[in-house]
Amino acid sequence: MSKGSQEGITSKKSEDFDEWYTQVILKSEIADYSPVSGCLVYRPSGYAIWENIQRATDAEFKAAGIQNTYFPIFIPERLLKKEAEHVKGFSPEVAWVTEAGDSKLDERLAIRPTSETIMYDVVTRWVRSWRDLPLRLNQWNSVVRWEFRHPTPFLRGREFMWNEGHTIFATKEEADAERDQILGIYRKITEDYLAIPGLLGRKTDQEKFAGAEATYSIEHLLPDGKAIQGPDFHSDGQKFSKAFEIVFVDRNEEKQYAWQNTFAITTREIGVMLAAHSDDKGAVVPPKLAAIQVVIVPIVNDENKKEVLAETRKVYEALCTRFRTRLDDRDHLTPGRKFNEWELKGVPLRIELGPRDLKAGHAVLVRRDTGAKRAVKLADIGEEVLSELDSIQKSLFEKAKEFLTKNTHSATTLDELKAALKTGGVVRVQWCGTRECEDKLKEATGGKIINIPLDQEGAKGPCISCGENARHIVNFARSY
Amino acid sequence: MSKGSQEGITSKKSEDFDEWYTQVILKSEIADYSPVSGCLVYRPSGYAIWENIQRATDAEFKAAGIQNTYFPIFIPERLLKKEAEHVKGFSPEVAWVTEAGDSKLDERLAIRPTSETIMYDVVTRWVRSWRDLPLRLNQWNSVVRWEFRHPTPFLRGREFMWNEGHTIFATKEEADAERDQILGIYRKITEDYLAIPGLLGRKTDQEKFAGAEATYSIEHLLPDGKAIQGPDFHSDGQKFSKAFEIVFVDRNEEKQYAWQNTFAITTREIGVMLAAHSDDKGAVVPPKLAAIQVVIVPIVNDENKKEVLAETRKVYEALCTRFRTRLDDRDHLTPGRKFNEWELKGVPLRIELGPRDLKAGHAVLVRRDTGAKRAVKLADIGEEVLSELDSIQKSLFEKAKEFLTKNTHSATTLDELKAALKTGGVVRVQWCGTRECEDKLKEATGGKIINIPLDQEGAKGPCISCGENARHIVNFARSY
Repeated sequence: MSKGSQEGITSKKSEDFDEWYTQVILKSEIADYSPVSGCLVYRPSGYAIWENIQRATDAEFKAAGIQNTYFPIFIPERLLKKEAEHVKGFSPEVAWVTEAGDSKLDERLAIRPTSETIMYDVVTRWVRSWRDLPLRLNQWNSVVRWEFRHPTPFLRGREFMWNEGHTIFATKEEADAERDQILGIYRKITEDYLAIPGLLGRKTDQEKFAGAEATYSIEHLLPDGKAIQGPDFHSDGQKFSKAFEIVFVDRNEEKQYAWQNTFAITTREIGVMLAAHSDDKGAVVPPKLAAIQVVIVPIVNDENKKEVLAETRKVYEALCTRFRTRLDDRDHLTPGRKFNEWELKGVPLRIELGPRDLKAGHAVLVRRDTGAKRAVKLADIGEEVLSELDSIQKSLFEKAKEFLTKNTHSATTLDELKAALKTGGVVRVQWCGTRECEDKLKEATGGKIINIPLDQEGAKGPCISCGENARHIVNFARSY
Repeated sequence: MSKGSQEGITSKKSEDFDEWYTQVILKSEIADYSPVSGCLVYRPSGYAIWENIQRATDAEFKAAGIQNTYFPIFIPERLLKKEAEHVKGFSPEVAWVTEAGDSKLDERLAIRPTSETIMYDVVTRWVRSWRDLPLRLNQWNSVVRWEFRHPTPFLRGREFMWNEGHTIFATKEEADAERDQILGIYRKITEDYLAIPGLLGRKTDQEKFAGAEATYSIEHLLPDGKAIQGPDFHSDGQKFSKAFEIVFVDRNEEKQYAWQNTFAITTREIGVMLAAHSDDKGAVVPPKLAAIQVVIVPIVNDENKKEVLAETRKVYEALCTRFRTRLDDRDHLTPGRKFNEWELKGVPLRIELGPRDLKAGHAVLVRRDTGAKRAVKLADIGEEVLSELDSIQKSLFEKAKEFLTKNTHSATTLDELKAALKTGGVVRVQWCGTRECEDKLKEATGGKIINIPLDQEGAKGPCISCGENARHIVNFARSY
């Protein structure tokens, strides 16, 4: 046992969210700081979460016909500059390689902040005819954005991991149709795996991705009442295809610029997920993503030790092929210490096995999320564990959804908006669509339009800022 | 179809290996050049090969109890310098980040050429007691080594992907015992998946990893008669634990420095594998690693088209859940053109289905490696494909092994050694063990000691260089 995990969480989620969050990440041994400010170390149980997210997402991508690739980590400066808005958005945060060995490079190389410019420069050679399309590529990698703001583990840092999907279509219609498919995949991953709900919508022009025609996002709500952007999808239109000459001959033998999309889910989701589910005892990780799903703790004394451990091992053997199971048979720790440790680390389900349980043919299941205990028959243990994990997965999502619903308000006046933001959460307001009102609201409240729900049902009233006819109902929040 | 793949290979493997190799890589659409010299683009079928290698290796690591992690891409200069031999070995090839946004960094950051120094600086915090050990970590990432020599796709470049295993033990015995386990995994992956044999041995002190006590490698033989280093394993002893203060309290409550190993398999293996198996028609990829294992080509004319395509689709449905299957029903290409394309791309097995075959209840299987054709009953197609793929996998390995055996010679005089090296291949010679003779042999022949087989059976004679008593039989070759 390393030092960190022997201490419990000393702050409360409801009192000092920031300090509590940092303690959960570090003391659960999910992640650690590195010698490079803003760059995180993923410890085994943290990396396992990302592997599980990645595996689930990648399976969905593959089923959709998206293919993985790998493009270089370096982007020559001249390429990064090819699309004007793109370079404007990224250059303030680019890490530049200028030297190699003892030599100065002739041209600076960016560590990829995102790969559009290096990919599209190459992909032009692969696209000649409409028969080469669609070309739907993806890569799993890490990117570097040299943030100068204070870093927070997973939520904001200088290096993070993600998928970056880059797809090329012959027609706008096909490109647009991909949006629902990809956002559907991200919704499934966030809801069914991470067990966190989100608000789907389009970003305002001011908030969209540097180089995109339109950006769509899933926005999450953190326990401290701030919104944070989750997975996103960008309709790039023909912006990059024109900058990089991605041209194909269509069915009528005419040259056309291609239509493109990009999309991403990042390791930030791990932080949002941990913030949502964890509690004052430590991390809570949904069963589908947890490195260890079930931990078995034998309750022994000197007399019954051999017998209980033998029985416990049988239970372990029965479970380990179906679930990510750990048998904690360390003999220098009391059961109580073990309980605390696995609670701190967020293992979803604990199985306690003592001599009395065994005599009765029972085991005791203890849920991490609720603390509820339940004796089950040893003969049914596999099915009982399966249904309990399933129930934990579902109830984490339900609880998170309830939190979002409870913290979604609406306001029709600036005072109402301010009051709602003070208690925290998302506020639905009506907006005329102008940049002017967007900026005014930002300045007056410290919050912003996080996105514009795609579903715009309900009658429109006056804009909350100028009183003119509103064009959109928008999600407004203080944002991370 | 993109332009490249419509052209076949125009060089012969036996006549101009270098040109042939480059054409195979590019025209098969496995990889492409990038705008950054020495950095390769992995196209979908190339990345799939790496994914399959990675998946198989990772499953072995996990079964062995090794856990994945992720450490930052950046290494501060002061850390890289902590172990003297290590920095000496790597600093001539380090890519340095010196600027971020508009700011100059206070300290240069290396893009990891390997992660020892960033990992061990952090891991010291995780290791306190013998109970924290062993700590067996791994990561899958890309590393950058700014080679100034001419790059060759997969075989030598400035960025490559790999696993880097970093393990920490309480005792030398445990650390040493890991060697056979890891080299056994690498042998399994290279032989059973890549279908290439290798020569296992210890590197000479001169050739070992910068910072290791001893390096062990699997060396491959390329078709041009040159050897090339494959996966390796380094016994680091206590070198890094002393430089980074990785100290633990042992069972006797005494402070001890830990014992460490590192090990890696890289994307270079893809190049070695393609070079070994491919031929003058294009790429040959072993079934276990191929992006597409089976391609179905319907043979149709206008009259029978609908009927044949319907039957072909049934065959596809029957196979696609068991094998990575592609149905090539494109109607603007003749079957002959399709055959050429899939042969160029290295799909292991082709199924031809025409009206006569269907009437007879048959399909024709065509092997990529040998070109052999065989009619099989449609009713048995799943089992037939399974056994054919298995047979291809095995015979690729047998053929590669035969090549290595045929090109392994021995020599007892310098003239014999020179003559053997001229025909190419590995030459077994006896060596006294001195650096002096090692250097002399290198200078006299242009080859080098690639490694020292662990199995040193057989009587020792005189050193081929100085005539003194030999200490080792060594593998000698011109090396890539």
